[in-house]
Amino acid sequence: MELSPFELPGALHEECGVFGIYDPAGNCAQSTYYGLYALQHRGQEACGIAAINDREQSFHKDVGLVSEVFDRETLQRLGGTMAVGHVRYATTGAGERENAQPLTIKYVKGTLAVVHNGNLVGVEDLRREFEYRGAIFHTTSDSELIAYSIAQARIWSSSVEEAVQRATRDLRGAFSLIVMSPQKLIACRDPWGFRPLCMGRKGKAIMFASESCAIVAVGGTVERELDPGEIVVVHDGQARSIRTNCRGSGHMCIFEYIYFARPDSVICGQSVHEARVNAGRLLARQSKVAADVVIGVPDSGLDAARGYAQESGIPYSVGFVKNRYVGRTFITPDQSSREQAVRIKLSALRSEVEGKRVVMIDDSIVRGTTCRQIIGLLREAGALEVHMRVTAPPFIAPCYFGTDIPDKSRLISCRHTPEEICELAGADSLEFLSLENLRKLAPDATCGFCEGCFTEEYPVDVRE
Amino acid sequence: MELSPFELPGALHEECGVFGIYDPAGNCAQSTYYGLYALQHRGQEACGIAAINDREQSFHKDVGLVSEVFDRETLQRLGGTMAVGHVRYATTGAGERENAQPLTIKYVKGTLAVVHNGNLVGVEDLRREFEYRGAIFHTTSDSELIAYSIAQARIWSSSVEEAVQRATRDLRGAFSLIVMSPQKLIACRDPWGFRPLCMGRKGKAIMFASESCAIVAVGGTVERELDPGEIVVVHDGQARSIRTNCRGSGHMCIFEYIYFARPDSVICGQSVHEARVNAGRLLARQSKVAADVVIGVPDSGLDAARGYAQESGIPYSVGFVKNRYVGRTFITPDQSSREQAVRIKLSALRSEVEGKRVVMIDDSIVRGTTCRQIIGLLREAGALEVHMRVTAPPFIAPCYFGTDIPDKSRLISCRHTPEEICELAGADSLEFLSLENLRKLAPDATCGFCEGCFTEEYPVDVRE
Amino acid sequence: MELSPFELPGALHEECGVFGIYDPAGNCAQSTYYGLYALQHRGQEACGIAAINDREQSFHKDVGLVSEVFDRETLQRLGGTMAVGHVRYATTGAGERENAQPLTIKYVKGTLAVVHNGNLVGVEDLRREFEYRGAIFHTTSDSELIAYSIAQARIWSSSVEEAVQRATRDLRGAFSLIVMSPQKLIACRDPWGFRPLCMGRKGKAIMFASESCAIVAVGGTVERELDPGEIVVVHDGQARSIRTNCRGSGHMCIFEYIYFARPDSVICGQSVHEARVNAGRLLARQSKVAADVVIGVPDSGLDAARGYAQESGIPYSVGFVKNRYVGRTFITPDQSSREQAVRIKLSALRSEVEGKRVVMIDDSIVRGTTCRQIIGLLREAGALEVHMRVTAPPFIAPCYFGTDIPDKSRLISCRHTPEEICELAGADSLEFLSLENLRKLAPDATCGFCEGCFTEEYPVDVRE
Amino acid sequence: MELSPFELPGALHEECGVFGIYDPAGNCAQSTYYGLYALQHRGQEACGIAAINDREQSFHKDVGLVSEVFDRETLQRLGGTMAVGHVRYATTGAGERENAQPLTIKYVKGTLAVVHNGNLVGVEDLRREFEYRGAIFHTTSDSELIAYSIAQARIWSSSVEEAVQRATRDLRGAFSLIVMSPQKLIACRDPWGFRPLCMGRKGKAIMFASESCAIVAVGGTVERELDPGEIVVVHDGQARSIRTNCRGSGHMCIFEYIYFARPDSVICGQSVHEARVNAGRLLARQSKVAADVVIGVPDSGLDAARGYAQESGIPYSVGFVKNRYVGRTFITPDQSSREQAVRIKLSALRSEVEGKRVVMIDDSIVRGTTCRQIIGLLREAGALEVHMRVTAPPFIAPCYFGTDIPDKSRLISCRHTPEEICELAGADSLEFLSLENLRKLAPDATCGFCEGCFTEEYPVDVRE
Repeated sequence: MELSPFELPGALHEECGVFGIYDPAGNCAQSTYYGLYALQHRGQEACGIAAINDREQSFHKDVGLVSEVFDRETLQRLGGTMAVGHVRYATTGAGERENAQPLTIKYVKGTLAVVHNGNLVGVEDLRREFEYRGAIFHTTSDSELIAYSIAQARIWSSSVEEAVQRATRDLRGAFSLIVMSPQKLIACRDPWGFRPLCMGRKGKAIMFASESCAIVAVGGTVERELDPGEIVVVHDGQARSIRTNCRGSGHMCIFEYIYFARPDSVICGQSVHEARVNAGRLLARQSKVAADVVIGVPDSGLDAARGYAQESGIPYSVGFVKNRYVGRTFITPDQSSREQAVRIKLSALRSEVEGKRVVMIDDSIVRGTTCRQIIGLLREAGALEVHMRVTAPPFIAPCYFGTDIPDKSRLISCRHTPEEICELAGADSLEFLSLENLRKLAPDATCGFCEGCFTEEYPVDVRE
Repeated sequence: MELSPFELPGALHEECGVFGIYDPAGNCAQSTYYGLYALQHRGQEACGIAAINDREQSFHKDVGLVSEVFDRETLQRLGGTMAVGHVRYATTGAGERENAQPLTIKYVKGTLAVVHNGNLVGVEDLRREFEYRGAIFHTTSDSELIAYSIAQARIWSSSVEEAVQRATRDLRGAFSLIVMSPQKLIACRDPWGFRPLCMGRKGKAIMFASESCAIVAVGGTVERELDPGEIVVVHDGQARSIRTNCRGSGHMCIFEYIYFARPDSVICGQSVHEARVNAGRLLARQSKVAADVVIGVPDSGLDAARGYAQESGIPYSVGFVKNRYVGRTFITPDQSSREQAVRIKLSALRSEVEGKRVVMIDDSIVRGTTCRQIIGLLREAGALEVHMRVTAPPFIAPCYFGTDIPDKSRLISCRHTPEEICELAGADSLEFLSLENLRKLAPDATCGFCEGCFTEEYPVDVRE
Repeated sequence: MELSPFELPGALHEECGVFGIYDPAGNCAQSTYYGLYALQHRGQEACGIAAINDREQSFHKDVGLVSEVFDRETLQRLGGTMAVGHVRYATTGAGERENAQPLTIKYVKGTLAVVHNGNLVGVEDLRREFEYRGAIFHTTSDSELIAYSIAQARIWSSSVEEAVQRATRDLRGAFSLIVMSPQKLIACRDPWGFRPLCMGRKGKAIMFASESCAIVAVGGTVERELDPGEIVVVHDGQARSIRTNCRGSGHMCIFEYIYFARPDSVICGQSVHEARVNAGRLLARQSKVAADVVIGVPDSGLDAARGYAQESGIPYSVGFVKNRYVGRTFITPDQSSREQAVRIKLSALRSEVEGKRVVMIDDSIVRGTTCRQIIGLLREAGALEVHMRVTAPPFIAPCYFGTDIPDKSRLISCRHTPEEICELAGADSLEFLSLENLRKLAPDATCGFCEGCFTEEYPVDVRE
Repeated sequence: MELSPFELPGALHEECGVFGIYDPAGNCAQSTYYGLYALQHRGQEACGIAAINDREQSFHKDVGLVSEVFDRETLQRLGGTMAVGHVRYATTGAGERENAQPLTIKYVKGTLAVVHNGNLVGVEDLRREFEYRGAIFHTTSDSELIAYSIAQARIWSSSVEEAVQRATRDLRGAFSLIVMSPQKLIACRDPWGFRPLCMGRKGKAIMFASESCAIVAVGGTVERELDPGEIVVVHDGQARSIRTNCRGSGHMCIFEYIYFARPDSVICGQSVHEARVNAGRLLARQSKVAADVVIGVPDSGLDAARGYAQESGIPYSVGFVKNRYVGRTFITPDQSSREQAVRIKLSALRSEVEGKRVVMIDDSIVRGTTCRQIIGLLREAGALEVHMRVTAPPFIAPCYFGTDIPDKSRLISCRHTPEEICELAGADSLEFLSLENLRKLAPDATCGFCEGCFTEEYPVDVRE
């Protein structure tokens, strides 16, 4: 709950979703529109689409939801036998419109459009190296740095794909990229495989997306996920794989399963929905509690609550109604009434919790303020006991790979024990998913995981 | 599903939600903002707020969601020791902005602001009578007719509330009204009680809302629902009831329970959430089926699915993921791809339905096209059988009281038997809730029901 | 200058321009767009167009310039074999959008659209009479009162035009109206003829406009001006005149010649341009001055400066450059720099005034602050002497007929003698046009004048 | 007339205006706002401002007029102890928002904001050289190329100003630049001096602007114009000149006098207003004609008409009224009515031309369509003869230095003799300003001129 988009102040935010499509039948901008719409949960602040028609690139991007930024006329104008698109949680302040992607550039070999999900580490040296060669940057984003690397590499490379391969070989961090040249569509995943990226087909069309749900949404069939380090080049209707940057099975961000991804997506072979049900089951096994009902905090806690119910035998119920209409411009209550803010978007169902001992499943605790309010709603609605169960371990460290986890000073688990948090939150008991169980929630996954925010141990060196 | 807001072409739409508040502490516009936000599901096309400061009325209204139409500055400007607000599904074409409410008028006794949920019948005579006395109307809405009636009645009445009582005494049809004069806030429900209206308090503040969820959202306590025909006048901080138009226990629109209202609302003493669970239970008893899993079509089918599962013993599961980001300006697929349109907003969870016999609960069938597509999604995801269960009887007649049910020519149940619909929809079996069971789904309700759309028998004569 | 649109705070504003057209060839909304554009100088805050297609009325109106409010799609949608349009200087604050015209109403005989230029007096009794019969008003505008009168009168009248004739017979004040019913276009001028209204043709099309320049702009030929009190009805392509309300030659607002109207318009047979040249000539005769150059304050002072130069023999020159880009949303300098505000929109031409004795012609002095700044610009640019000449007498009284002249407390001529004003403004000499000469500036005019703002004597009793 | 902003299709457009200010008192964004507003005639499609506060750069830019793009809140947020701003006529199609300036970049030494008026030639080699070193460009604009050159040069330069000097040394073409680093404001003019750039002061503030009128508008005093090739660096409140790129007295675009610049500006010591008066005088001497009145086509023809009248003794008059309200979004008449399009923005004053032999002064003839329409207006208004005089020679070649003159195929003077053009335009006689007289119109100018569009001889080699 605390991680939901359009959240009350201080929430976490995944930064991006990417989509790309090659379709000789055209209308690629429209397909990308629907693809981005399916990925809207990965970023609600800005979005954009670039398209190729007869090797000419055009684009449109702005601040807002996909449905706000694009109209029918714009999609028709963009057309496209290829297109790439992006949704993002933009940085605040001036220039946010400029940070919207796709990043479109002109360079020695023509034009490129780049969309990027992830975050690099240790780029200051690389950025300075480029700058000392005279590079100028319009933004501080890693995406522009990647584009620059590709443009540089293109000079001594025989093809765009070779440039992508060379440019990304030495980058450290998370990047699921789609690059569009006038003739080629190139998808690329970092060698650690932090962020998902999959590939699908629909007739002669070939498409890439952050999550499989986007491919299904446009009527396509998911073919496979890209391997960590893999590059797939689409040219003249043929897809070809370049695997020279591949190094191993990777380290998928485990928080994609717990919170970010849509439950109908499959990531590294693991259904996100099932991973959440598993998290609930594991929590139920981890500690017993005498209770009358199990409920989840919408949306990501719902699946876990069902898993908990199945494993524990305690009946599952719906404990909350969530207001779906919060938008970018929603006016949040001012400071004085912050404590009651949660009731504007969440309402407890009295008939389900009154006079009952309740197990409440949520996906995470960041600062602890939201869960105190939610538990307050249940008490008001007559719950006798509230036993909070969290489908993740305590956050103890920042993420360097694209999740906007606040610094340690604002992470309650850096300052308090679970027992203290339980008391602060007003719960009768509190249990986090153990690290041991965390590693069991995605048994079908064909990859390893990054658990850095829970362990402070990262797959790549994050020191600058 | 077919009735959801932001629905694919041809869906039903409830037309309005109303909210009003008296609070000597001020900031009534802001409270109304949060109240309307909680009622946003009752109308997404236009909204507005009128407020009183020192007996002076000001207002703001426009096309759009509550979060789009209002900003902090506007709310501060409106302020208010009293305010009324409205959300509506506006009529199409020119003038939609003009049709937004509150309706604000100047008349012999000063100003009035009126918000209205419902629809009148047999008003043509009344309208002509007024017109022959020289009245001019700016819109075709019933709301303006009601405002006119009140203004007329005020001339020979000793108070605004008396004018409201006299003006509404002879009106036929559905009206849940809130009227705001410079000094009084007056709530009024039609004698048949078609649409809900309740009253709450928070400290010295007194408020009215279409649904109880709005009172809870602003931190208030629900005091009671207005009786059919009741008028409540708030003046100088005191609430007084006028019951001269009360005639009986009323005929609440039963579709409020099945689809319109938010599950956390209580209407006529009946929890909407529980009514939906009951509908599922009743369907389970009504006919047996051998199946592996019960799922609901979001959102209103989910509660019913849990009831069905509890009663039948077949396990409950989540079968669909619904995209939450569709907005007013979303570009729907064009004619050629309409068949696949549903997949843009709904996605089947393969892991839950693959290889299974599925019972799927939905709230209604209007034209039958949407349910065919939804069943198609389940088949694609590997469902072996799909048994559709509908928490309402077949629609056979239009609604004259505020629900936008299409005319008979577009109601599939007017042209086809359930068996034919089952085949057209591609289901393995289809069962509608029987009329007998319909009457059992709200056992706690203290009122009678209007079931006109299912029986073509209406509580008031609908012939012009 | 002080009266210019987009003026610095406190300026005068004419309130409206009207246009109406019947054209069996259609596209009347587009013609009205161009007609209103030619009348934009009469009101820049809001505008609107209503059109009839197959007896159905549609409309569009909003806050903004004609070029901002309408796009091609809207004009095409409006179409129209008849249309009426309006530009206005809207009232401030909430509801300004609601005050935009055309006023569109539904009444016993169908629909009406009304556009109105002018202002009534003594309407409180009429308003109360209507209200006591039950009328409700949505605005405080006279226009709505007129519409109501017509709708009332229509009940016992045999035609719309008869209703217009009866309804306007007893109204006092200024009204140049165009009324559009589903089948008829009716233009009407008050019996005093305060505001202009003329009629033109283009092929089979018949049109009406506040000023002749609008008829010329759409390619039409000016046929004639309506007489005071005259009503012209266009039906089935034929124009018919009703003269029962005609009483005399009328009292045209003399300020139309001095400031409001466009110089290429002809009003009551008098070229506005020539009237301004005459005003300059009369000022030159009124008093002599030894000077090197005559300049005008743009725009209305330019013509007068040429007349002054011709009469006096002192060379004419261009003394100022005016910035043309000020728009509705222009940010005026804040209080501290108000004194220098005028230089943002006006710049003196050093080469024309340096070392010279300058005669500067302006159209009026309201508060005197602007002319002090303008004279300051000339001093900065090296003018040795500045002799101010004003093409109107001092303002000593408010206008009740549609010109937004401030109350007496803010009129400098109510508190100071011309000599004092001259000193306050920093001029070397100051001369107002005498009342005697005022009456000579429009020798071709076939009407009398209203000079109330200069004499406090009005053609109709303005006491309530 | 044919060159006026907001012109009918096919007109010429000057591309840019620049403004920059250092003011330790702050509020530089607001000063820039007023400065840009005074330069609005140099570009109406897009604008922007970048400001420095505590060495941090922020900016705002968008499509629209200055008054549309900025509001008070944005200006306050920008604040600034330094600021630069830009108005431009943006390129069409996608990305026009991206092409708005200031161009803001991040590079090895921090940030830069660049505003640019002009156009380079022979840049393809330079662009390729940069690209082969790996540069990427976001736009095709020369401005980005200049920024890149500065960023490159900064690596081996000891200061920003040295980098500007080195980077611009070898550039060919027109550039009046203002560059803002976190601590310095640097103005720079190309060695040919194609475009104007001047410097002013107001108290401790130092400012630069394309035209002197902008400095006057913000209350400053014009100090001097930059010499061709000169660089002025403002640092710590001191201005220092770098003259190593200076080569001679330069070649000012002569069309700045004829059309682009505001008449109250002084360029190279020559009053623009006087240059236009001179052009009229020269035309009068060039050929005699028997006529009754001399009129100018607004706006740039007005001054010339007065000069013509003074020289010829034929009386000057105002022949046209121009509609001032055309905006960016004005809907121009469609193809069928193009012929009459001009009457929407221009109206002839019958009283001044009827029955007269008219000399009409305009600034240029591009395609000849507009002047035919204007002459048609005079004929309709009763002019007996129309003798057209043009304050420039025939256009026979394109401009490579920032004026959007169409290619030869659309220049009427490339295909027709003056006699033919006279006949096509429907004039009784036609005379262009001779090349010889062209060179006399700016006698006070301290520079040479570029007359390339009239002679096809350019100060720099324009062949690629």
